[in-house]
Amino acid sequence: MKTRVILLLSLLWTTLPAQIAGPNEPRYTGDGQLMRPDKYREWVYLSSGLGMTYGLVETAVANAFPERFDNVFVTPEAYKAFLQTGTWPDKTMFALEIRYSTTKGSINKGGHYQEGIAALEIHLKDQKRFPSKWAFFGFGTADQTAKPFPANSACQTCHAKNGAVDETFVQFYPTLLPVAKAKGTLKPLTGN
Amino acid sequence: MKTRVILLLSLLWTTLPAQIAGPNEPRYTGDGQLMRPDKYREWVYLSSGLGMTYGLVETAVANAFPERFDNVFVTPEAYKAFLQTGTWPDKTMFALEIRYSTTKGSINKGGHYQEGIAALEIHLKDQKRFPSKWAFFGFGTADQTAKPFPANSACQTCHAKNGAVDETFVQFYPTLLPVAKAKGTLKPLTGN
Repeated sequence: MKTRVILLLSLLWTTLPAQIAGPNEPRYTGDGQLMRPDKYREWVYLSSGLGMTYGLVETAVANAFPERFDNVFVTPEAYKAFLQTGTWPDKTMFALEIRYSTTKGSINKGGHYQEGIAALEIHLKDQKRFPSKWAFFGFGTADQTAKPFPANSACQTCHAKNGAVDETFVQFYPTLLPVAKAKGTLKPLTGN
Repeated sequence: MKTRVILLLSLLWTTLPAQIAGPNEPRYTGDGQLMRPDKYREWVYLSSGLGMTYGLVETAVANAFPERFDNVFVTPEAYKAFLQTGTWPDKTMFALEIRYSTTKGSINKGGHYQEGIAALEIHLKDQKRFPSKWAFFGFGTADQTAKPFPANSACQTCHAKNGAVDETFVQFYPTLLPVAKAKGTLKPLTGN
């Protein structure tokens, strides 16, 4: 009886965390495409921007009119690790969700609020799978899988050069920037 | 031995959910002030706006320049219940976080992104405590407790009249609006 109970308790402790953590790790198809993470809206929110443009990466999305919102989420396990260490563990996933903006609906009289999704990009760290450690994937609204961007893509190049922590734009995440400063993990970039 | 094991397992099942749910329920001081929820950034994100203004509630915050972002979060337990039912259970808490916006920092060349907190408002449902069922609380950046707004406040009046579901602005939460439509819980308001 005692052995069976210990076994039962061990199973509880070892299978419960795996069931919780599993959906927040990257899952790939047999031919190396990333499967769309369907629960990213329940990850931890980092920040939003409206109509953000960049010097090197002037994309059609960023220049669209009406301007679009971008919402950034990160996997809860990675967020908790970052609060402790100021760095991103392996299997970290970011979701960049781009949404259409609108105004003057319902009782709203001015300003901008969010509507439907225009696109979803995933930025993830998978050190064994990608020689550059990090990779980007772009999902259209109906895409369930996506191939990685080339290692020399504009996204990859700009993030590697300008990311404040590792290859990520912590300089735009107001709750994480103070953590990185306190942990001493900010790269010495101009303007950080 | 068997009895002790059953007791142990019962304790696991009954105490674990309580420990997880506790921090996401409203906590009050002895004199009825709400204690600032310190983990609201880990609640489920609903949406953001920039510089949103309303017909009846033209607040100084909404009209500020540069325009301010508002980020809305809801307690995870309430979010899960809403996905199932299209309604908000008792103890639901919303956080409206108002943040300053800025532009042209780091590599950003245009558009708006978020900086420090300007204010935090909590909107919650506590049916036994408040005759109107819902109440609002405003926290300055340093406030650890807040008194409820009067029951006839502009916030309360506008939400009761214009909230698409119960007293909440589901019309501005793009992932929840389709749920409310599917569950038939939208109020018959103009423009919904």
